[in-house]
Amino acid sequence: MVEGTDRIRVPVHEVVGGAVAEQMDRVAVEEPLEIRLKAGGERRTLAVTMRTPGADRELAAGFLFGEGLIRDRVLISGIERFTEEIPPDDGPEGTREASARDVVEVELAARRLPTLRSLERHFFTGSACGVCGRASLDEMLVAGCAPIGPGPVFTPATVCSFPESLREAQTAFDATGGLHAAALFDTTGHRLAVYEDVGRHNALDKLVGRALLDGELGPERTFGERAIMVSGRASFELLQKTIAAGAPLLCAVSAPSSLAVEIARRFRVTLVAFLRGQRFNIYAVPERIAGL
Amino acid sequence: MVEGTDRIRVPVHEVVGGAVAEQMDRVAVEEPLEIRLKAGGERRTLAVTMRTPGADRELAAGFLFGEGLIRDRVLISGIERFTEEIPPDDGPEGTREASARDVVEVELAARRLPTLRSLERHFFTGSACGVCGRASLDEMLVAGCAPIGPGPVFTPATVCSFPESLREAQTAFDATGGLHAAALFDTTGHRLAVYEDVGRHNALDKLVGRALLDGELGPERTFGERAIMVSGRASFELLQKTIAAGAPLLCAVSAPSSLAVEIARRFRVTLVAFLRGQRFNIYAVPERIAGL
Repeated sequence: MVEGTDRIRVPVHEVVGGAVAEQMDRVAVEEPLEIRLKAGGERRTLAVTMRTPGADRELAAGFLFGEGLIRDRVLISGIERFTEEIPPDDGPEGTREASARDVVEVELAARRLPTLRSLERHFFTGSACGVCGRASLDEMLVAGCAPIGPGPVFTPATVCSFPESLREAQTAFDATGGLHAAALFDTTGHRLAVYEDVGRHNALDKLVGRALLDGELGPERTFGERAIMVSGRASFELLQKTIAAGAPLLCAVSAPSSLAVEIARRFRVTLVAFLRGQRFNIYAVPERIAGL
Repeated sequence: MVEGTDRIRVPVHEVVGGAVAEQMDRVAVEEPLEIRLKAGGERRTLAVTMRTPGADRELAAGFLFGEGLIRDRVLISGIERFTEEIPPDDGPEGTREASARDVVEVELAARRLPTLRSLERHFFTGSACGVCGRASLDEMLVAGCAPIGPGPVFTPATVCSFPESLREAQTAFDATGGLHAAALFDTTGHRLAVYEDVGRHNALDKLVGRALLDGELGPERTFGERAIMVSGRASFELLQKTIAAGAPLLCAVSAPSSLAVEIARRFRVTLVAFLRGQRFNIYAVPERIAGL
């Protein structure tokens, strides 16, 4: 599933008790990606996010979708991915070596960029990773989030099949221990997509971005019959992205936060966590699980 | 160690095989905190971060330290923590209920705020959580980061004692599975401080912020004889904060990212990861571990 270099081999000293062995170990790649908007000849950097390379266009599209800036692929006239040299003179004293940076430039099918004020509301307080940008929970609604409608129903057996299916698809996790994953399932447990990243929010952005670019998410289409599964914990930002995509079920391998539970209840998302083996806990809207 | 409400009890449906039981479960609290700077009657919001309540002043101070904005406690003339009502009319249509938000206001011992341009460089691209703000690695140096000097040396036995000591101090982790921790140790393995949070970066900010406020970090003092231990993975942002505090050793329970390894090498931080039981891997600068 993964494009680009998502892990590299590095030399490592392995210490076991008193003994030391020199080995090679694989680590997950983490590198900055700059996301820019472009319209009418103007460009503006929206965010620099640390991510695992691969599916960079999807990441940018999903990020813009989650922030409520682009909810329809027809608003995008092009997405370009390139590596840009940073001239050596731009660095501070003592660091004047040339370097390079990956960039995704999303061109809007509009004559001009959104106003600075509207972008600032999104980004000034620092929402590049989705965690930090909202001054209040109510501002989630600004981004076009609405409570999820009733249905569908998932059986406990289907829910319990998600982690194994996710692990099967995760090519890098076992090798590095450092990549999170987000996967999309239908109501029968069929896995539709999976993406990996050092950041859970990025993995989910990639998943959402691909669907946006494919026209599977948009003004008339949501993840209304889908489940999202993430490899780690369920935090506010993952709920925010789940709700933006209209998914009725979010499953996490590990613990939820209080805000994840609160937001799930308020926006009518079924929240499953500690999903391991034949066990799971339901923290919100249990009626979408068969037998409840 | 923790002030405030860091976990709450919520009702949960526990599903095991086909059986369902209604239980109460504890979840880690995640809530927004607004960090503001104040000087000469002016105020400016720098970030809204999702955090676990408790040690909010420390979090704000540590955040400002890590961003390079406040490197000396004498630059702070006061820190106020309060809860502010958000008037009901401020929300978008349909969400006009009153709500409240926790705020920490850091008053500078200066006649005016830093210029918008200087703050924008830090924050416009979204660095509230420390992950996303730097346009390039070289910009880390802008925040006053410098390579760590030689020494001290830690024995493998001391390093292996950190996780158990961290777990002993972690009051909430076992109960919720949702809180990360950051701890500070001296070269003999004595635990000096530990903080918890839903975000690893916040736990480390709290640790650093307390030391700044106590005068243990400042223009003349660093963590040069200390080790930092974190409960999860080692990413770019944790290295950045470790380097800003001048600590020579960072230990993580789980995997490092490629950028964490690269930054550790470049800034001469000994990076230990997969630290479990009597085993660990050294990814950078092994000579601070005795016998290497």
